Amino acid sequence: MESHVPQAVAESVRTLQPDIVDALQQLVRIPSQTGFEGQAQDAMASLMRRHGLEVDVWEPDPAVLEPHSESITVGSGFANRPNVVGACRGRGNGRSLILNGHIDTVAVGDPTAWNFSGLGGETADGRLYGRGACDMKGGLVANLFALRALRHAGLTPAADVFVQSTIAEEDGGAGALAAVLRGYVADGALISEPTNLAIVPAQGGSLMFRLQVPGLSAHACVRDDGVSAVEKFAYIHRGLLDFEARRNADITHPLYAGMRNKVPINIGTVNAGSWPSSVPELLVAEGRAGLVPGEDLTTFKAELAAEVAALAAADDWLRNHPPLVTWLDGQFAPAGISVDSPLVTVLTTAWMMTTSSHPRIEAVTYGADMRHFVITGGMPCVMFGAGDVRLAHAPNELIPLGDLFTAITTTAVFIAEWCGLA
Amino acid sequence: MESHVPQAVAESVRTLQPDIVDALQQLVRIPSQTGFEGQAQDAMASLMRRHGLEVDVWEPDPAVLEPHSESITVGSGFANRPNVVGACRGRGNGRSLILNGHIDTVAVGDPTAWNFSGLGGETADGRLYGRGACDMKGGLVANLFALRALRHAGLTPAADVFVQSTIAEEDGGAGALAAVLRGYVADGALISEPTNLAIVPAQGGSLMFRLQVPGLSAHACVRDDGVSAVEKFAYIHRGLLDFEARRNADITHPLYAGMRNKVPINIGTVNAGSWPSSVPELLVAEGRAGLVPGEDLTTFKAELAAEVAALAAADDWLRNHPPLVTWLDGQFAPAGISVDSPLVTVLTTAWMMTTSSHPRIEAVTYGADMRHFVITGGMPCVMFGAGDVRLAHAPNELIPLGDLFTAITTTAVFIAEWCGLA
Repeated sequence: MESHVPQAVAESVRTLQPDIVDALQQLVRIPSQTGFEGQAQDAMASLMRRHGLEVDVWEPDPAVLEPHSESITVGSGFANRPNVVGACRGRGNGRSLILNGHIDTVAVGDPTAWNFSGLGGETADGRLYGRGACDMKGGLVANLFALRALRHAGLTPAADVFVQSTIAEEDGGAGALAAVLRGYVADGALISEPTNLAIVPAQGGSLMFRLQVPGLSAHACVRDDGVSAVEKFAYIHRGLLDFEARRNADITHPLYAGMRNKVPINIGTVNAGSWPSSVPELLVAEGRAGLVPGEDLTTFKAELAAEVAALAAADDWLRNHPPLVTWLDGQFAPAGISVDSPLVTVLTTAWMMTTSSHPRIEAVTYGADMRHFVITGGMPCVMFGAGDVRLAHAPNELIPLGDLFTAITTTAVFIAEWCGLA
Repeated sequence: MESHVPQAVAESVRTLQPDIVDALQQLVRIPSQTGFEGQAQDAMASLMRRHGLEVDVWEPDPAVLEPHSESITVGSGFANRPNVVGACRGRGNGRSLILNGHIDTVAVGDPTAWNFSGLGGETADGRLYGRGACDMKGGLVANLFALRALRHAGLTPAADVFVQSTIAEEDGGAGALAAVLRGYVADGALISEPTNLAIVPAQGGSLMFRLQVPGLSAHACVRDDGVSAVEKFAYIHRGLLDFEARRNADITHPLYAGMRNKVPINIGTVNAGSWPSSVPELLVAEGRAGLVPGEDLTTFKAELAAEVAALAAADDWLRNHPPLVTWLDGQFAPAGISVDSPLVTVLTTAWMMTTSSHPRIEAVTYGADMRHFVITGGMPCVMFGAGDVRLAHAPNELIPLGDLFTAITTTAVFIAEWCGLA
């Protein structure tokens, strides 16, 4: 690569800053909760066309995805929920590249918990606020403007680059999987999830489960005649936290070394009982368990079920009234590539050329769309983007604009390095 | 009393058995969940008129009850929810008597949990099944037919006897309180709640509370960045069970001696979180705490709140994010009378004359309408009736018909003993 590329691209990004912020604001202002991505995808398609890309818009076919329904959610289908892919055709012999982001977001949640409008796209102190700001309309804008910045600097990738705006990541990634199944496979893929500018070649998996713990109803005035499902659940929950601690101690994956909780088991919802004066006869909890790359979903499911069964066997009531573990839709297999993979080393080079510093190379504990590219698509994939995943589903979600510009410049340099220039 | 009375009354009850069963079946078949007592009260009024009673039917006035709204539920008022009282005027100088029962029931619940129709009034193996069979349409029928059996035997009470069918016991007893406030006060009151034929001169109180335990939301993949409201609740719940154990150890009331759990603290409902993959930021539990006679509601509320505050103070998170305890409607003050009260001794005599055995004299841990008679009405009150309270709110609620007939005979003899005969 010629040494002027990073400077030229950085200069383009500086020039494009108002357009970048404006594009992100426009996107954040269009609600696009999972299931309702249509209007935001229209905006993405328009933006891609304005950027000169060849645009493919299609609604995924439920029949094609149905065989994968354990790992994604088909639900009521994909009407008015198209995927959008913008292609920039290469004029040479470089390595092709997919730049992926998902358009769907979680709900805004309780608006009173926000200091900003959840769909306002307001900026303050160099940050842009709103649902989806970092997860991941910021990443979508970064991918699009990385390509734009390159071309603004008069540079053209030598190989095909596909900018993808896919749907339904939050409930399993039907959109990314549908893109793979449509034939969008390249020599590498970058997902601009909010990694806080770390290079992430390994991603945890996750499974969502339901746990039904039986009790025995009785009037509260004779509560000892009943069995509280709440108390029995507390016992199972303590056991699951012990199981989590043992799993953490056993994991040797190098990128997870030193991580506080490599495989969190979270109880997210609990519902029990119907009346304050009755002993609750059923507790239903739903939760999420994390996996690290190298673990297999089927094996883990059996291990967690065995753990619950062993806990039940040690309890007088649960032995004869065993809790039921079932698995919810949206299973995320863990996925990863070697830290020595060319995708990682080229992205490392791009980062160093852009920032004159060494990148952080990390694993993350969350599941996202990487598995569809790596496992189903058979291509190397890495995640890299601005923003902190800790804010992703929280009130006051934000993206630091300086980091967003750094991500865009780095991604542009990466495209040049990976694809080559025509 | 003349010694032929128990035999004559028992003979009348034997003759009236088909009528008794038929009346109870008719009543069970009319749904009368709290709030919807109207149609069943029409049936009660008709039955009382057929039995020759002077009937008073009135809808309680919310304005009169409003000052008592801490201990009863006014809710949306009492339209189509009348109280019904049938008076049998005495022709002598005996002690007047109220025979009380409530017409309202809890919901049938999940019909698949029943082996019988929840509103069918079916009989099998000497038992009558259905919602309200023992709690307490059986008691209402017992009161009415006790008086009927006496008169069938040609005997007339010397003092006024009031047979009451009151509403809204299940959510606090607005009906019984309204009867007291209307001026229905007598020299003694008997409530035919299902005491399993024990004489019950002391009744526990109860308070329903809501406990809101705060957490801190985070994505499940970094769950240690959050604070699980479910885990913090488990800690508070263990503390409340310790508090319950200490209270049990401290209670010296003689009628509660040897009782397994004198003051149960029951967590009846738990609801936390909104998504399996988020750390739950709020848990809301509702429960019921029991009190024994001699305890004061206000004092106990302060003690329970102090217990929760002390637990919170010992926890790093809860210290700065304290759980909130609030009190729900339907507060039941405990109530009781001395075991040496004439009401108890006369009922003991009636039992012995009827059954040639000694009665069980017990306290119960549940709250009901006794407090309105004792505390607001200033009259002695005792509970006595057939059926097991353990089945009261459960599937397959039933009343043993043999016990019902025994209760009716005993009550008839008791009326004769208490009121005297004209």
